Amino acid sequence: MDAQALEDAASGRAGDLLMVTAREIASLLGVESCESSAEVSRVSAIPAAGPDALVFALDEDAMAEALASRAGIILGPLNAAADSRVVRVKDPRTAFARVYAKWFDERGGRGVHPTAIVEMEAVIGAGCEIGAGSYIAAGAKLGADCVVGPRVVIHGCATLGSRVRVQAGAVLGSDGFGYARTSDGYLGFPQIGTLWIGDDVEIGAGTTIDRGALGETRVGRGTKIDNLCHIAHNCIIGEDVIMAAQVGMAGSCVIEDGAMLGGQVGLGERVTIGKGVILGGQGGVLPGKKIEGEGVVYWGTPAQPVREYLRGLARMRKA
Amino acid sequence: MDAQALEDAASGRAGDLLMVTAREIASLLGVESCESSAEVSRVSAIPAAGPDALVFALDEDAMAEALASRAGIILGPLNAAADSRVVRVKDPRTAFARVYAKWFDERGGRGVHPTAIVEMEAVIGAGCEIGAGSYIAAGAKLGADCVVGPRVVIHGCATLGSRVRVQAGAVLGSDGFGYARTSDGYLGFPQIGTLWIGDDVEIGAGTTIDRGALGETRVGRGTKIDNLCHIAHNCIIGEDVIMAAQVGMAGSCVIEDGAMLGGQVGLGERVTIGKGVILGGQGGVLPGKKIEGEGVVYWGTPAQPVREYLRGLARMRKA
Amino acid sequence: MDAQALEDAASGRAGDLLMVTAREIASLLGVESCESSAEVSRVSAIPAAGPDALVFALDEDAMAEALASRAGIILGPLNAAADSRVVRVKDPRTAFARVYAKWFDERGGRGVHPTAIVEMEAVIGAGCEIGAGSYIAAGAKLGADCVVGPRVVIHGCATLGSRVRVQAGAVLGSDGFGYARTSDGYLGFPQIGTLWIGDDVEIGAGTTIDRGALGETRVGRGTKIDNLCHIAHNCIIGEDVIMAAQVGMAGSCVIEDGAMLGGQVGLGERVTIGKGVILGGQGGVLPGKKIEGEGVVYWGTPAQPVREYLRGLARMRKA
Repeated sequence: MDAQALEDAASGRAGDLLMVTAREIASLLGVESCESSAEVSRVSAIPAAGPDALVFALDEDAMAEALASRAGIILGPLNAAADSRVVRVKDPRTAFARVYAKWFDERGGRGVHPTAIVEMEAVIGAGCEIGAGSYIAAGAKLGADCVVGPRVVIHGCATLGSRVRVQAGAVLGSDGFGYARTSDGYLGFPQIGTLWIGDDVEIGAGTTIDRGALGETRVGRGTKIDNLCHIAHNCIIGEDVIMAAQVGMAGSCVIEDGAMLGGQVGLGERVTIGKGVILGGQGGVLPGKKIEGEGVVYWGTPAQPVREYLRGLARMRKA
Repeated sequence: MDAQALEDAASGRAGDLLMVTAREIASLLGVESCESSAEVSRVSAIPAAGPDALVFALDEDAMAEALASRAGIILGPLNAAADSRVVRVKDPRTAFARVYAKWFDERGGRGVHPTAIVEMEAVIGAGCEIGAGSYIAAGAKLGADCVVGPRVVIHGCATLGSRVRVQAGAVLGSDGFGYARTSDGYLGFPQIGTLWIGDDVEIGAGTTIDRGALGETRVGRGTKIDNLCHIAHNCIIGEDVIMAAQVGMAGSCVIEDGAMLGGQVGLGERVTIGKGVILGGQGGVLPGKKIEGEGVVYWGTPAQPVREYLRGLARMRKA
Repeated sequence: MDAQALEDAASGRAGDLLMVTAREIASLLGVESCESSAEVSRVSAIPAAGPDALVFALDEDAMAEALASRAGIILGPLNAAADSRVVRVKDPRTAFARVYAKWFDERGGRGVHPTAIVEMEAVIGAGCEIGAGSYIAAGAKLGADCVVGPRVVIHGCATLGSRVRVQAGAVLGSDGFGYARTSDGYLGFPQIGTLWIGDDVEIGAGTTIDRGALGETRVGRGTKIDNLCHIAHNCIIGEDVIMAAQVGMAGSCVIEDGAMLGGQVGLGERVTIGKGVILGGQGGVLPGKKIEGEGVVYWGTPAQPVREYLRGLARMRKA
């Protein structure tokens, strides 16, 4: 250990800490730099910020708090007063996320944990991290740079793109729920299809996604799925869809690009959610129905455009 | 490796592939055979069918698609035109499931995965498959031919019948949620009962079933439970019940034989769902209530027969 | 093995069985003892009780059943008739739970299961039990006497107090669900905060609790959380809160002390549930809203005080 490393260790600072200057940050964000010569090595909430931290502030109150803090560099709104620590940007929250993604996101890249169980016939792309106790079955294929948390199950029917993130306890490629009623009780319909997950999809803890019955279940590029959601067999989820926690959908639903489903939304079989539709939390859509309209907000069960929903609610509640 | 096996390997075909004739299929289904001499070795969706595949078609459109495909044998409806590849049956979907179950269902029978943790005092019936990373605690008893997926937990209080299927991540026999309020906060009520699961029950990924508090939690023969459901302590589930994903029920509910619960249904404590009742998705029943009527469809919270529910909805939504 | 142990083994009784007298029980509960010289070694439901068992009875019917049983000691209500086996108390159910907690609760204390994966840099307090296949990441801290079930994941951002119980399959400290929309799709907002869980908290099977985004997620002392709940980043849960199964809440909610949330309750972002509020099953609160009133019962979505809710329901359903 050399002198610098000893000093770093004494100060509790890693020797290889990445330092980023205000000028580098401004350059990434395509804005004019502030005059600051500050360097930061992490992002932080304002109360926990030191001179080594980047923070962001959305409005005047937050700006005042940030300026009163010890933060090294502050991402503030365009109308913020000039200050040697402030880099002014159009959208400070997004800018903060961009800086984090560029320099400070340390998730991933740790390889396969020694307790993960990866069957011989699974294909794991370069740069993947597989967490402790996870199980990757024979036949599964993961693209490059995926991050699979601990205790995940990926069945052999699943193909994942690159940079897919799967959190702890999720199950990808479980058998769907399909039966034929006979005089001897229920008989399982074959659940032998596949599951395809595009690049940059993120899947929350405890979420379950079933394989297709005969065909395919699909989750499109860039879609983000929160914890404890359930996606049934043969659902086709588009790109850049947002699905909050505990959403559930029955078989063969279609969720078009850019749709947003609030928490605990429930969809019957063969429902279609049109491109860019926003369906509020706990909303429900009956089997076979379609709701549509880019940016239109729906609410309730059966889901209605929010204005009609509120009118009905007022009628129900009037004296 | 003999010459035949080498040839099979070269063609990507397993040497011991099971070939089933149209005559054998007709015989299983109790119908007249077609004249076909075709043999199939798998079931398939129509678009992915080759000469080695059995498909089914429910109506004229699907029949046209099937006849235009390369499928070796087609299960069609009774009114389908005679064709050398078509076996005509009353219910092609169920027939398809029966053929699959008889000859092509390859799930199960793989024994205990080397990474599964089976405590010494657990009893595992003949022919069981226990998946990677699953934990079977001391005291648990599994009947014959159960298929337990990866990362399942079966606590010691649980007794399973034969041919029970449990998917990845499910938890059987967790402690129930029961407390007594005291001046020092909540005190746990004993959760020391048992869990009994009948033959041919299927349990979805991530589902949790609590043991009885003092007595028993029961799931009757043939009942099918989808992903992420929650069954609380002392619930008594009958036979051939269908429970879609994310259903939740509080303690001491009774679900009688043949009832069907849609996705995200929620039941309060001590609710009774009568024999053969159908409760639509997101429906709710208040604590202590009973709904009944074989084949009667209920909807909403508090659940009402569907006709009354729709009338109320129309009233709420009228101009 | 000595003679007594042999005899015990032959009778199926452990040599070190704890025997508790009626006098000891009465003393714990602060009531007059009955005259019984009975000793019990377990708690039981009435139908399964033998002379070695303590049971409880809340009303006349249960008392009659208990007196007709072989139970050794009966906890009955204050107005129960005097009987040599009956200890009369104000609240027999709570008294039963207190006796169980004092002498018969055998959960916990089994140490770390050999298949649990505890990273070097995790801190495990004295007396903790860690179940089979669980994963405790580097950085996690557990206080004394925690009981962690099988297949649990505790991420490195989590700090648990003492006597915390976590059931099978739960995930503590998963990344929250936060994104910034950009022209290139969604960009992850940093999820680098912490999770703090107080003493005596209990967490059900399959429940997921996210770490703070930049700050902290908190669960206060004594709070009890049922199975398959979802608690998002930066939620602040007070003390002695009760949360039934499948409750879900979006980010930055505040649940004040003593609140009770029924099963499948759903809360939008930044919702506040006031001290001691009771929100019935499937109820929902819209983003940013607050409901309050100690002991006030709310119902429905958007949640209303129960009287108003019922009035609206009656109006909707009238002829």
